[in-house]
Amino acid sequence: MSKNESQHRRHLLLGITGSVAAIKVNELVRNFNSHNIDTIVIPTERAKHFINFEDSWCSHGSITQIKTPCYFEDNDEWSSWKTRGDPVLHIILRDWADIFLIAPLDANTLAKMTIGLCDNLLTNIVRAWDLKKRKPLIIAPAMNTAMFEHPLTRQHLDILTNNFGYIEIPCIEKTLMCGQTGIGAMASVETIIEQTLKTIQQMSNDEL
Amino acid sequence: MSKNESQHRRHLLLGITGSVAAIKVNELVRNFNSHNIDTIVIPTERAKHFINFEDSWCSHGSITQIKTPCYFEDNDEWSSWKTRGDPVLHIILRDWADIFLIAPLDANTLAKMTIGLCDNLLTNIVRAWDLKKRKPLIIAPAMNTAMFEHPLTRQHLDILTNNFGYIEIPCIEKTLMCGQTGIGAMASVETIIEQTLKTIQQMSNDEL
Amino acid sequence: MSKNESQHRRHLLLGITGSVAAIKVNELVRNFNSHNIDTIVIPTERAKHFINFEDSWCSHGSITQIKTPCYFEDNDEWSSWKTRGDPVLHIILRDWADIFLIAPLDANTLAKMTIGLCDNLLTNIVRAWDLKKRKPLIIAPAMNTAMFEHPLTRQHLDILTNNFGYIEIPCIEKTLMCGQTGIGAMASVETIIEQTLKTIQQMSNDEL
Repeated sequence: MSKNESQHRRHLLLGITGSVAAIKVNELVRNFNSHNIDTIVIPTERAKHFINFEDSWCSHGSITQIKTPCYFEDNDEWSSWKTRGDPVLHIILRDWADIFLIAPLDANTLAKMTIGLCDNLLTNIVRAWDLKKRKPLIIAPAMNTAMFEHPLTRQHLDILTNNFGYIEIPCIEKTLMCGQTGIGAMASVETIIEQTLKTIQQMSNDEL
Repeated sequence: MSKNESQHRRHLLLGITGSVAAIKVNELVRNFNSHNIDTIVIPTERAKHFINFEDSWCSHGSITQIKTPCYFEDNDEWSSWKTRGDPVLHIILRDWADIFLIAPLDANTLAKMTIGLCDNLLTNIVRAWDLKKRKPLIIAPAMNTAMFEHPLTRQHLDILTNNFGYIEIPCIEKTLMCGQTGIGAMASVETIIEQTLKTIQQMSNDEL
Repeated sequence: MSKNESQHRRHLLLGITGSVAAIKVNELVRNFNSHNIDTIVIPTERAKHFINFEDSWCSHGSITQIKTPCYFEDNDEWSSWKTRGDPVLHIILRDWADIFLIAPLDANTLAKMTIGLCDNLLTNIVRAWDLKKRKPLIIAPAMNTAMFEHPLTRQHLDILTNNFGYIEIPCIEKTLMCGQTGIGAMASVETIIEQTLKTIQQMSNDEL
C-alpha cells in the first residue's frame, strides 16, 4: 500500500447492538475494507450474543498501535485505565475515527442515545462524539414491527436526527426474525455501504 | 376441564418489579387461576429478591408447550435463542398473552417504560407490546412516599396512560415497609383482581 | 466532643460517580470532617474503579449504629434486607442525612437523575430524596469537554436545578485527564467545600 493510498483510507467505528441483524458485521467490515475504509468494531454485550468475529481479526485491539479490523469491548475501557493520566479508551477511539456508524441500532440503545445514558463503551463514544467537528454519526435502526411502530421510536429518531444531526438509514419492510412481516428491519448491507460512501464523499468535498 | 371452559380461559402476563409488594405474587396468581385466568410471571432480577415461587410452578417454562403457572427470567431470553430463525422469547410471550399486568411497578421500571429502555425480558415485552391491537396493559405502581411525590412520577404515569393507553391502578395511602405512612403503596390484591376482571369483561364485550 | 458540639455536627451523604475526579473523595471527606461534618460515602460501581478508601474508614457501615466516615455500596442495600419489615437502606441513609452532595456527577448518572432511573443505591437515594423537606441536594458535574458541550448536558442540568431545586456547582475549564483543555472539569475541592458550607449556613439560618 503506497503512502498516498494510506492517506486516503478512512477510519470508521462500527457500533453493533443487540439485534439479530448484528450477524451482518463481517459482511459490513469486508465491504468497507474493499472501499479503503479501516474499521474498528464496538459491540455491546448484547450484540456479542449474535456475532462470531473472524479469526483473522485482532481482538481487544491495542490502543497504542491500532491494527484493523479489530474490536474493543466494554471491559477494555476499564482494563486500559489504571491511573491518572492513562489514556481513556472512548476518547482514543473517538479521536481515531472519521465517521461512526451504528448498525444495527436496537430500541434499547436508541433510547439510551436519546436520553444521554452512557453506561458502556459504545454509548460513551456517542456521548463524547464531538458535534461541533461535524464528523458524521450514522444510525441504522433495527427492531420488530411493534417496537418500531411504538410512538417512542419516531420521537427518538427525530431527536437524534433533528437535534443532534445524526444521519438515519431508514428501516425497511420485510419478514423479520420473529416471523412477522412488517417495517422495522435494518436496511440492506448495500444501502448501508452506499450511504456511508456518500457521506464520506461529502466529507471529502467539505475538506476541499 | 371441558373444551368450552378452556376456550374461555384468558392468558395473563404478570410482570413483577423490585418493590416489596412483589411478595403478593402467589396470592395474585392463585386469584387469577380461580377466575379462569392462566398466568405467566415475568420477574425482573430485582423482583426475584422479594419472591419465593411456589414449588408446584414450572420454572423456566417451555416456550414450545406452555404450562401455567410458570415464570420466565431474563436469562431465558438468551438461552432460548441460538441461531437465526429461533423463536424470540419476548415475542412468543407477547403473542401468547391477552393482557399484561405489571404489579408492582417500581419507580425504576416506570422510568424505563416512559423513555423506552428495554434491557430485560419484562421491558422488552413492554416495548414490543402491540398498541394497535388494543390488548390491555395495566400498571399498579408501588414506591415509597417521597419517590411517589417526586414530580417525575406523575409525569411518567401521565405519559404511560395518556400517550400509550396503559391503564393505571392508582397507589394507595398506608404505612409502607419503610415505616412511613403516606401515599405510594400498591393497590390491594382485591382492587387489582377487580380491575383486571373488569378490563377482561370490557375486552369480551368489544369482541362481540 | 461535648454534647453541644455533637448537636452541631451535620450529616452529609457524598455520592461519587464514574469520573476520574472521584480520586478526590478522601480530600473531600477530611475537609468536611474538619468543618464538623460527618460523611457517609455512596460510590457507584464505576466510581469504585477510581478510588481507594482510607484504611481507617468503616467499610459497609452498620445501619443500626452508624460510625463515620464510612461507605455503603449497592450490594449493601440488598444484603441488609431479608424480610418484610427490615430496614430499607436508601431510606435509612436519606433520613440520616442533612444534605446530599454528588461530586463528581458523571454524564451517565446525570441522565439517570434527569429521567428518574434508580437502579443503584445512589440513584435510589436521589429518587427518594424528599423535595418537600427542602434538604439541599448539591451536584458537581464532571465530564470531558465534548460530553459537556453536547446539548443534552445543559438540558439535564436545567431540569435538575429548575424543576427539582438541586444546587449546581458549575464545571470549570482546565486540562482534563483525556488530555484536552476545555470546559467540563469538576470544580475545585475548595469551591465544593465553600459551596457546601454556604448551603449549610443557609439551612441554619432557615432553622432559626
